[in-house]
Amino acid sequence: MTVDVAEAAAALQAENDILILTHRRPDGDTTGCAGALCRALRQLGKTAYILQNPDITKRYVPLIAPCYPPEGFVPQYIVTTDMAEEKLLPDTAEQYRGRVDLVIDHHRSNPGYGRKNLIRTDAGACAELMYDVINALGARLTDDIAECIYIGVSTDTGCFKYSNTTAHTHAVAAACLTAGIDGGEINRALFETKTMPRFQMERIVFDTMEFFEGGVIALAMLWRADIDRTGADADDLDSIASLTRQIEGVQIGITLTENKDKTVKVSVRTTKEMDAAAICQKCGGGGHIRAAGASFDCGMEEAKAAILAAAREQYDAKR
Amino acid sequence: MTVDVAEAAAALQAENDILILTHRRPDGDTTGCAGALCRALRQLGKTAYILQNPDITKRYVPLIAPCYPPEGFVPQYIVTTDMAEEKLLPDTAEQYRGRVDLVIDHHRSNPGYGRKNLIRTDAGACAELMYDVINALGARLTDDIAECIYIGVSTDTGCFKYSNTTAHTHAVAAACLTAGIDGGEINRALFETKTMPRFQMERIVFDTMEFFEGGVIALAMLWRADIDRTGADADDLDSIASLTRQIEGVQIGITLTENKDKTVKVSVRTTKEMDAAAICQKCGGGGHIRAAGASFDCGMEEAKAAILAAAREQYDAKR
Repeated sequence: MTVDVAEAAAALQAENDILILTHRRPDGDTTGCAGALCRALRQLGKTAYILQNPDITKRYVPLIAPCYPPEGFVPQYIVTTDMAEEKLLPDTAEQYRGRVDLVIDHHRSNPGYGRKNLIRTDAGACAELMYDVINALGARLTDDIAECIYIGVSTDTGCFKYSNTTAHTHAVAAACLTAGIDGGEINRALFETKTMPRFQMERIVFDTMEFFEGGVIALAMLWRADIDRTGADADDLDSIASLTRQIEGVQIGITLTENKDKTVKVSVRTTKEMDAAAICQKCGGGGHIRAAGASFDCGMEEAKAAILAAAREQYDAKR
Repeated sequence: MTVDVAEAAAALQAENDILILTHRRPDGDTTGCAGALCRALRQLGKTAYILQNPDITKRYVPLIAPCYPPEGFVPQYIVTTDMAEEKLLPDTAEQYRGRVDLVIDHHRSNPGYGRKNLIRTDAGACAELMYDVINALGARLTDDIAECIYIGVSTDTGCFKYSNTTAHTHAVAAACLTAGIDGGEINRALFETKTMPRFQMERIVFDTMEFFEGGVIALAMLWRADIDRTGADADDLDSIASLTRQIEGVQIGITLTENKDKTVKVSVRTTKEMDAAAICQKCGGGGHIRAAGASFDCGMEEAKAAILAAAREQYDAKR
């Protein structure tokens, strides 16, 4: 059943012993939403926790760790945040499959797998929607709640840079700053700080980058030995594939990553002139029109030749 | 004389044949403000132009070039935007020194060199203030005016990332998006696109970067031959000095640039633990606490040794 903000807030008001679930490979939006909702529910006197997420990265631990449930906690009401489908439940949440009471999300592809579903697809970040829910709950926007909301909003919109940023996004950010958070310091940590492994990874991308077709195609090679040497984790590798496309004139950016088992993961990013999904489909992969991928069982050089041929074919057809 | 927004708007309403001046090395804020104000004044039926600025870079030409005055235009009222002091008048505006009628600015250091001075130092970008002026003028926020305002606001706040971003900044951005501009596309051009020379410059920074004192000090060397090979211009070199400080753990980031005459420009950027100005003062330079510089008449290696000694001295004293 589809519900609106007021109905979702009313449902939460009527319940207690609430458990909030974040999605696999948790990002700032799912953890920010969960952190904000849990703190708001507690402010209203409710018992609420956030389930441990085994994939959590250092960056987002502070948002959810203070809300982990004690052993023996038996939840009566299950909420997911920013989770497009049930298969994104982390392994720890397997038992809640088919038992989600309230879905709060902004993904277009969400089938509505909860008993109640609050899905607003025009929200750039789910945290924008969560801000409205918290308002409807009558909770105060304390600085810790504002920080959770702000992190969700800023990470999902590339710090208000991407086209999913709306007037509402900015209005929510304004409210968070008014609540007293230090946006500059939060953003410095999220967007202006490169870990040493991230820096080393970017150096590898820059050093291995080759250009083809007069600079329309850029291709970088991330060899396993190099990756291991940097000590990069998931946070560090996040969005590294988009670096190739940032260079002026590049319409097809390709990043090859050598996996631990020597298979190859290929990420393709395109500008509006090209179709990343179509390129990857030629190699047995797929994805979105601007961001797609494919996997290869061969070595790096062979994979490079294959994806480059597919990219060139599209470039030749479109020019 | 200090004026408020309503008084500045009233002064503009009473005048005609208005010439707007941008500052030396024009950025998105001065050109965005000038572009927005000129278009708003024209909407009200006034004759208004923006003086040519010889330093204008490709990125900001579209904001002011459509407003250049015809030969023989004799202005009756002179306005500066985002200009902290008269010595920032470009060479083309020398004749207006001492004749500025209205200053619209947000710099704390502005002495108020106009007959009337509208200075609001809590505005992250001068364009936020300009938005208020245009509202007070009763002009409509058309999409071209909104685009000028948005570019001013987003460039001066690092796309809403820096600590000068306030709730008002976000409110102005929200109004611009509501006016119908494509924020995502504007930001992609401003913040997500690296020119090939910029990419090459970053590669040089990454490749030459050395770390000292366990990663607390990072130092990059930009040799003239390398710079010339990239074809980098002022836009491309903009903010390149901040790259060294972005790495986690780095508290003092140093960038040495070999000038055309073989002298050396040193830029120092620090985190809150260190004092860039004090480091540079030891070498005859100066600046702000987080961003300072010095010049050397010696070669690159000698300059490196001197600035590194000054940085180490501070690190030793503070740790």
